[in-house]
Amino acid sequence: MSDQTTTVSELRQIIRTFVEERDWRQFHAPKNISMALAIEAAELMEHFQWIDAEASRHLPNDAAKLAAIGEELADVIGYSFALANELGIDVSDAIRNKMVKNRQKYPADQFRGRYSRDG
Amino acid sequence: MSDQTTTVSELRQIIRTFVEERDWRQFHAPKNISMALAIEAAELMEHFQWIDAEASRHLPNDAAKLAAIGEELADVIGYSFALANELGIDVSDAIRNKMVKNRQKYPADQFRGRYSRDG
Amino acid sequence: MSDQTTTVSELRQIIRTFVEERDWRQFHAPKNISMALAIEAAELMEHFQWIDAEASRHLPNDAAKLAAIGEELADVIGYSFALANELGIDVSDAIRNKMVKNRQKYPADQFRGRYSRDG
Amino acid sequence: MSDQTTTVSELRQIIRTFVEERDWRQFHAPKNISMALAIEAAELMEHFQWIDAEASRHLPNDAAKLAAIGEELADVIGYSFALANELGIDVSDAIRNKMVKNRQKYPADQFRGRYSRDG
Repeated sequence: MSDQTTTVSELRQIIRTFVEERDWRQFHAPKNISMALAIEAAELMEHFQWIDAEASRHLPNDAAKLAAIGEELADVIGYSFALANELGIDVSDAIRNKMVKNRQKYPADQFRGRYSRDG
Repeated sequence: MSDQTTTVSELRQIIRTFVEERDWRQFHAPKNISMALAIEAAELMEHFQWIDAEASRHLPNDAAKLAAIGEELADVIGYSFALANELGIDVSDAIRNKMVKNRQKYPADQFRGRYSRDG
Repeated sequence: MSDQTTTVSELRQIIRTFVEERDWRQFHAPKNISMALAIEAAELMEHFQWIDAEASRHLPNDAAKLAAIGEELADVIGYSFALANELGIDVSDAIRNKMVKNRQKYPADQFRGRYSRDG
Repeated sequence: MSDQTTTVSELRQIIRTFVEERDWRQFHAPKNISMALAIEAAELMEHFQWIDAEASRHLPNDAAKLAAIGEELADVIGYSFALANELGIDVSDAIRNKMVKNRQKYPADQFRGRYSRDG
């Protein structure tokens, strides 16, 4: 997996270069990027809209669909990094800090096999 | 920046461990994760909903707001990695491949300063 | 059903009055309303995020959940009408015209029981 | 305006007939409709993604764009009615009830010209 040797900064730099080469930072107000990100998340969701949750687990068997989903996921993460670039957010720190909160909010022993206190 | 030394795999592993410790893979059908991702993207967008694009560029000056936005961004990227985990997608490859396509679709010399052929 | 005697204009007027009484048209740029609408659609989706498609058919049996969903749906339609108000779109005409297109795109005899040509 | 003489029930019936003629209720689990609705809301938002809030106020001057936006809005409201049909929600009651709550949450004298207590 290329993910094992690729740092977050390297991917962020790919996005930054693409944006700067087109002089697109003028469009990349964080407000606009947040909209672009939500739109790409919806396009990703389109692939799952009419199929069963169970069927969605078997998508890796369909290479063409998996590639199409990979492209949409790349767009989502790409805009996430574009937003981090504009706002100067360290993604790795943000994720580590949020997961500390999540572990406090959802202690493993109380939420094993359930996603809510009622669930 | 922690992003300079953190690989994508390391972040994916943080998410994977969190999910597995709670036995939540049963809920993590790709269909459901795609919904969760879109919902988090909307929560991120909430921070930008009523402010001007220009004002959104100055958000880094507001430490409390920036931290709140960082948390939502962490959720978006976290679910993106959860989806990559379930479907076995290499995020770095997906982004690199998509950017090849994007460079073909938006040649820098034709799209400098404009985001569409009419724009 | 109150829907049988309520015109679309009456509902649009309720929204218009609410906005004008608060002098909120200044925030109601169509761009901003489109974001608000997408955010409310995501909040509506939250109710369905982790449950099965089949279970979602039985939600009318749970009065509290149904009421909560009704509130989110009201927000979605409310912002839809707010957007129609700002842009001067006749909702009934827009829906009738779109359904003409949809009937051409999805002829009943070719799409009975399938939502795509491959499906 | 056709909205002045069209009841909500009439529009809901147009959607119901379209769905039933194609035997599509099998796909219309509320979970799936909520996804379709969020996707259409994102498509609507696409029209506003890169333009200024101010520019979005002048869209009614561009007949082609306005028609395109009207189609996306029709899709959003169409799926909203499809969801109301499946769940048996009276839209007019839901909106009236929600607006009672909204008037309590945002008293006109305290929120005139501001959308939050800090704003």
